[in-house]
Amino acid sequence: MTTTLGPDSDLSQIFELAQQLRVDSVRASTSAGSGHPTSSLSAADLMAVLMARHLRYDWDTPDNRAGDHLIFSKGHASPLLYAMFKAAGVVDDDELMTTYRRFGHRLQGHPTPVLPWVDLATGSLGQGIAYSVGIALACRDLSKVDSRVWVLCGDSEMTEGSVWEALDKAGRHRLGNFTAIIDVNRLGQSGPTELEWDTQAYARRVEAFGCRALVVDGHDLDAVDKALTTAADSDDTPTVVVARTVKGRGVSEVADKNGWHGKPLPEDMAERAVAELGGRRDLRVRGPQPPQAQAAPVPAAVDIEPPRFDVGDSVATRVAFGKALAAVGARPDVVALDAEVGNSTHAEDFQKAHPERYFQTYIAEQQMIASAVGMAVCGYRPYATTFAAFLTRAHDFIRMAAVSQITMALCGTHSGVEIGADGPSQMGVEDLAMMRAVLGSTVLYPSDATSSAALTVAMADLDGISYLRTTRGAYPVLYDADETFPVGGSKTLRHGAQDQVTLVGAGVTLHECLAAADRLAEDGIAARVVDLYSVKPVDTDTLTRAARETGNLVVAEDHHPEGGIGEAVLSALNSAGAHAAVAHLAVRDLPGSGTTAELLDAAGISATHIADAARTLLG
Amino acid sequence: MTTTLGPDSDLSQIFELAQQLRVDSVRASTSAGSGHPTSSLSAADLMAVLMARHLRYDWDTPDNRAGDHLIFSKGHASPLLYAMFKAAGVVDDDELMTTYRRFGHRLQGHPTPVLPWVDLATGSLGQGIAYSVGIALACRDLSKVDSRVWVLCGDSEMTEGSVWEALDKAGRHRLGNFTAIIDVNRLGQSGPTELEWDTQAYARRVEAFGCRALVVDGHDLDAVDKALTTAADSDDTPTVVVARTVKGRGVSEVADKNGWHGKPLPEDMAERAVAELGGRRDLRVRGPQPPQAQAAPVPAAVDIEPPRFDVGDSVATRVAFGKALAAVGARPDVVALDAEVGNSTHAEDFQKAHPERYFQTYIAEQQMIASAVGMAVCGYRPYATTFAAFLTRAHDFIRMAAVSQITMALCGTHSGVEIGADGPSQMGVEDLAMMRAVLGSTVLYPSDATSSAALTVAMADLDGISYLRTTRGAYPVLYDADETFPVGGSKTLRHGAQDQVTLVGAGVTLHECLAAADRLAEDGIAARVVDLYSVKPVDTDTLTRAARETGNLVVAEDHHPEGGIGEAVLSALNSAGAHAAVAHLAVRDLPGSGTTAELLDAAGISATHIADAARTLLG
Repeated sequence: MTTTLGPDSDLSQIFELAQQLRVDSVRASTSAGSGHPTSSLSAADLMAVLMARHLRYDWDTPDNRAGDHLIFSKGHASPLLYAMFKAAGVVDDDELMTTYRRFGHRLQGHPTPVLPWVDLATGSLGQGIAYSVGIALACRDLSKVDSRVWVLCGDSEMTEGSVWEALDKAGRHRLGNFTAIIDVNRLGQSGPTELEWDTQAYARRVEAFGCRALVVDGHDLDAVDKALTTAADSDDTPTVVVARTVKGRGVSEVADKNGWHGKPLPEDMAERAVAELGGRRDLRVRGPQPPQAQAAPVPAAVDIEPPRFDVGDSVATRVAFGKALAAVGARPDVVALDAEVGNSTHAEDFQKAHPERYFQTYIAEQQMIASAVGMAVCGYRPYATTFAAFLTRAHDFIRMAAVSQITMALCGTHSGVEIGADGPSQMGVEDLAMMRAVLGSTVLYPSDATSSAALTVAMADLDGISYLRTTRGAYPVLYDADETFPVGGSKTLRHGAQDQVTLVGAGVTLHECLAAADRLAEDGIAARVVDLYSVKPVDTDTLTRAARETGNLVVAEDHHPEGGIGEAVLSALNSAGAHAAVAHLAVRDLPGSGTTAELLDAAGISATHIADAARTLLG
Repeated sequence: MTTTLGPDSDLSQIFELAQQLRVDSVRASTSAGSGHPTSSLSAADLMAVLMARHLRYDWDTPDNRAGDHLIFSKGHASPLLYAMFKAAGVVDDDELMTTYRRFGHRLQGHPTPVLPWVDLATGSLGQGIAYSVGIALACRDLSKVDSRVWVLCGDSEMTEGSVWEALDKAGRHRLGNFTAIIDVNRLGQSGPTELEWDTQAYARRVEAFGCRALVVDGHDLDAVDKALTTAADSDDTPTVVVARTVKGRGVSEVADKNGWHGKPLPEDMAERAVAELGGRRDLRVRGPQPPQAQAAPVPAAVDIEPPRFDVGDSVATRVAFGKALAAVGARPDVVALDAEVGNSTHAEDFQKAHPERYFQTYIAEQQMIASAVGMAVCGYRPYATTFAAFLTRAHDFIRMAAVSQITMALCGTHSGVEIGADGPSQMGVEDLAMMRAVLGSTVLYPSDATSSAALTVAMADLDGISYLRTTRGAYPVLYDADETFPVGGSKTLRHGAQDQVTLVGAGVTLHECLAAADRLAEDGIAARVVDLYSVKPVDTDTLTRAARETGNLVVAEDHHPEGGIGEAVLSALNSAGAHAAVAHLAVRDLPGSGTTAELLDAAGISATHIADAARTLLG
């Protein structure tokens, strides 16, 4: 017979629940032949108290925006999370025992949002806590709901810098709706953790970063309950519960023993473990319920009035981005995030227009992306911006956002050697490779203000992770304000029946291609010029036609030769079975300081080099 | 007449030196038309005291391993650094005034090691302090020299998580030879910093992370001197001097005023500033000298005995890597760094053999790379290892290491969907794109134990950043132990005069290619099989010959389609003017959990799909 526990259940019942979570964690991982039972056993008491008494969540309507959020930053403790799902009655024992970690099923090795009760994918440590800060911010300051965010962290992950970026922001924003629970079980994957059971050291760090630390014995249910009550009663103080626990707790053969990380118990050990834990139980939990479900507000259709630019005026694409971003802000679901460079990226235009939806994360790119992801989870459309070079700082967060199938827009400014005197540390020359390789991404690289503004607006309706690459300097506006720029398209700026070569550029190199075409024309060489503003997806049709009609292509990019525009073009031609002689000009050496013109020329991507490459192709 | 200051100069003279540094910072940036004078003015007093009284450095022999190290983590304060070089007599006024930030010259916008007094490039904030921890570790624990490391940080960069990874390690390793000086000038690029002048908040954080904090008025020369004296006298306590300063100090028109970050003073303002600062001076500095120069020890030629494997045995490439790494450790300059996954990467084999040169950074991939870079600066050859997926966490550090022209070896294990049940968070499917796009990198991806061991050994003699991609599972050993694997080469495992198609793989897909060739042979289709173990540089000759002789290529990679092996092959063929029909099989959808076989097949990169692709190419 099933017994249902709730907020009024006494601690002896909750102990039984914890034991059930342990039993099911052991059983599930043993049945799968892989997984992390010992990392689950340490946190079972914490989670039993949380789900019975504190987590305000209706498991049957996970979309309820007023419900709390539970994030497993230690995603490898998925056996515990899935055992909780079973206790909640949304996953049955058969699913747990026969599908965990198996192909084609949703109970994956680490949690992902293919499960309706999972907000986002974890498993890269130090990330769940960072996303949780973004969710807490979104709940309090955007959705204005009373939801709390509970995040379970491992102790090993506390050495990730991203954890401290997160707690810094939790403290700064006074996120009283944020509670992290650190499962200090002392043992990492390959040995003792850095701080082992020095819970006071954790507490000092947490307090220094502006959060309240509550140190407890993580197996003392009463102490845990009191700590979570204190956390939940918080007005504006973020709380970190530092819980001293034992890895493998409850199973004497593995408890507090090194060498059992990420290993399922063999079947005979699992049987003994289940027996030691008191055998299987059939407890269900119905914890505290959130307020009446609130539907997500349907954003009213709003007219976005993008900025207009006059052909021939000199305007930087980053300037156009900023103005367009401010315009896109007419949509109430759009938010902007900055890493203290808003006056360079021009995201500050959004800040001026919509300060209530502008989030300054200071120089903490990982947390900027994590906050964006958290806000996306809550239904908002983030635009996160910094220098293209510094987006590499958040690569792992962007990668994981793709696993979470998050929709967000990124903008990287100051791309390429074009930036000039600041030198190579500030030059984004790897960002196209990074962003193209993100699963399901869209990569855009406008050459003028009109297209930059149009693509910035278009990003608000794209699914997945989209990336806009902008340029520091001002260049002539090429397109009328009413021109359209479909994603996956391109613009052919020069063409004729006698074209002998096609010059392909984007961003600054498009302007160099235009200048090169002029020089080639002086030599009597007709050159087609293609603005490849959509790098992914790329306009295969136009490239194939150019290959067929001109036979020769020069591709020039302000980026390293690997993974950027040149290889995108080669892939497109290959996929269409098209052949052409392609000269690929890219940044192949370490640049220094200089003027834009000097650096483009030194990198071999200036008009001079483009024209020379065309002449060489034509023999 | 030139006056030379030294350790015995009184503070009034050092004040004059500080003013000279300010004057030259203003003059240099105004002459260049760009740069960060106000960020230089705030730190001039700190650096004047340091260079006159504490920095034990012989400017004429920067290679002296016994000398101190000075790192500008706030690399944008390059005017101040270069003004110090002028005061040291190694850069003259003409160079400072006519070459700073100009093309083809060494005084770049942010410091790089093209300057002999600069250990490594900075300008991506939060990195210099992390590298400094690595240098301090190398000096104390590897070189066994008494050098101190002094690193100047900006206050804005203290929000980067990497800073706290660094201070955590400084504290853990009790690096008494490490001193960070935080220039708390309250103003960032676009407004006040997060903590403004809350020096006590910085101090609390620093102390919580195990370092000693000394809070001073950064313009009180006596206080600064005492703090640096305390730091220098440290036995085993790392010190962080939290210096309250004024941005633009000494120039009333800009002092403590927002809106002057990264802006040179216009000429008229610069003139007034120089006048207010007391005009130009001609001071030289000869600070405390380090011990007699010690030549770097020339490593004796050592015999490395790589592990040997028997053809047909099943051995994982990561296992072979670990054994080979332990063997390479016979070289005394080789060090290994781990991010708490040494039992997965098998770097632990090195730990067992050479514990004194094994560095556990726990789960802090940014600091792992930063420590590796710091050790490389000190003449060591680091091997830094974690999961391929988690190397993305350190992308910005790897990028900057390339700007610093560092030599180091990286190994990323658990590549691709091959890993199986753990799911997408643990799968490296973007790492080839990331690592190929690193300037000057070498990218290697062995398919068997013999080649994995050989390439691991080869990496110890490669310049620049090299990357070895390894696989989780065990696969048959393909090559005799005496086989050689030149970087830039490949192995053709199957070939004949009648080959109709070439199957190109690396890592796990090479084994799938071999199986596919068997199936095709059953259909009477002769397939060549190429093991493309060297992804960058790639074996263009072999690929070109295959294109010419077989006309059809199938490239299969356990990686996203962008930036990986497929595009490397297309680039190689294009560069050689070779044409072929190329079927490109790669991971194009989000994987889940499952067995290796299930996931390879679901991703379309299994033998079945490779054989099908070949048949389709052949019509």
